[in-house]
Amino acid sequence: MTYELDAEIALEDVPEQVGAYRGRLGEGWRIGNGVNGGVLMALATTALQRRLDTEGAHGDPLAFSGYFLTPSGPGPVEVGTEVLRIGRSMSTGQVSVRQPGPDGVLVERIRALATFGDLDVSGAVLRSVSPPAMPPPEECLSSTEAPPNFLAAASMLDRLDLRIDPATAGWAVGKPSGEGVMRGWLRLRDGREPDPVMLLFALDALPPVAFELGILGWAPTLEFTGHVRARPASGWLQVELTSRNITAALMEEDAVVWDSAGRFVAQSRQLCGIRAPRASDTAGGGN
Amino acid sequence: MTYELDAEIALEDVPEQVGAYRGRLGEGWRIGNGVNGGVLMALATTALQRRLDTEGAHGDPLAFSGYFLTPSGPGPVEVGTEVLRIGRSMSTGQVSVRQPGPDGVLVERIRALATFGDLDVSGAVLRSVSPPAMPPPEECLSSTEAPPNFLAAASMLDRLDLRIDPATAGWAVGKPSGEGVMRGWLRLRDGREPDPVMLLFALDALPPVAFELGILGWAPTLEFTGHVRARPASGWLQVELTSRNITAALMEEDAVVWDSAGRFVAQSRQLCGIRAPRASDTAGGGN
Repeated sequence: MTYELDAEIALEDVPEQVGAYRGRLGEGWRIGNGVNGGVLMALATTALQRRLDTEGAHGDPLAFSGYFLTPSGPGPVEVGTEVLRIGRSMSTGQVSVRQPGPDGVLVERIRALATFGDLDVSGAVLRSVSPPAMPPPEECLSSTEAPPNFLAAASMLDRLDLRIDPATAGWAVGKPSGEGVMRGWLRLRDGREPDPVMLLFALDALPPVAFELGILGWAPTLEFTGHVRARPASGWLQVELTSRNITAALMEEDAVVWDSAGRFVAQSRQLCGIRAPRASDTAGGGN
Repeated sequence: MTYELDAEIALEDVPEQVGAYRGRLGEGWRIGNGVNGGVLMALATTALQRRLDTEGAHGDPLAFSGYFLTPSGPGPVEVGTEVLRIGRSMSTGQVSVRQPGPDGVLVERIRALATFGDLDVSGAVLRSVSPPAMPPPEECLSSTEAPPNFLAAASMLDRLDLRIDPATAGWAVGKPSGEGVMRGWLRLRDGREPDPVMLLFALDALPPVAFELGILGWAPTLEFTGHVRARPASGWLQVELTSRNITAALMEEDAVVWDSAGRFVAQSRQLCGIRAPRASDTAGGGN
């Protein structure tokens, strides 16, 4: 059987084009009209992983930096890759994901740089931040309890078993805490276990921490950098989002992920465009 | 007069090549045998800024992600740029800096993606982290007091007025605190005031926080992402470095910069290769 996430990010070689791949984004990972950015990052990572593998490079993503250029939607994708450096223990490449626009001309969705290595060598954790205290999954707010119109607008939620810590879920009942923190448990509903590529998805899978700050509009990601620091154990992931700095048009969202053994495995920071109270209408979707 | 930093990152157009520039790294910004990575990032940013300016895009760097491929040294640099997207309020491009290797063939030093915008629009700070409590500059440890062999190995220190908080300078006398924090005041000695490009330099100008963790070897930057969030006031910058997660071969270094008005203006995270106690000799310079 092929798991849903793996089916979504599956790629085939473009004949006679080195490092070029084709895929198709489905309807199952939508957030609003777009496809979740974490899915796009997992797809881009998979493409580069495949390209670097042909060069004999190690295959675990260690660092990934993606710049989101235009919103992705369901439909075909064309992926191009470039090898920048093959090293003894780490290798770096570039990847670009494009989709045909309304006129059929390819439009770039994301451009990313990423470094790969071997987590079995580099992943022994010597010092790390501990997971936050939060209630067990069964005492958290399940995404299945979200209002039907919310679920209908985000088909991705059907793929996830997501449980939000009630202390950080005030936004769901119109009472955001204003604290800039969101915590949750996450696993894929079809039993697909976490691995380094899935962690890049997990870093961007929770609702935006902006919600808990009372910023409820669309907060498009401009730039996202994730670091995978250890190979995750099977089972639940624990994710904490925080944001400390908000300007008129931009905020950062930091994410940390721990595995079911309570081990720190990944972290990220993304810069999001927002329409904060005093925004003078220059950021956001049409930036 | 041209300030030292501006002279170091000055570029000239390559005739008849769109978006191509030439420069020269001098001897004055060395750390060990290499040129400081922050200088390289400021140079790459300046190149992309110039390229985007020809397209009418806004000129303030908001986000910069650089992947360091090989160590830079004094000598000529060739810079290539690519425009990825020109938006109404933000624009994104790619930049590559290369230097001739021993055989004259160009070797890529850094590949980066960056987004530019207008900090006068997006920079109003609505919520931000406060500067840390630390003694005033005159009560901190000046880099001029460093041992002569240390200063000789790092010509960049001659350009800086850098004052390290004594509480985080244990490493300088062989007694690292083990706390994973370093704080300092920073300004350029020739009076060049901070601006958004200089902030990208400032984010990477202090000694590595690894020193204060007792990790004294070379910790090459693999990936660096910086966000400039507000235009800085003139005068001293206050910089805080932290690191919370160390694996056998990798650690992150987070930096936050405040301006002389105590205003949060920039932050970054970099992933560094290290040789931690249990490293099995796969990371580091020759990764």
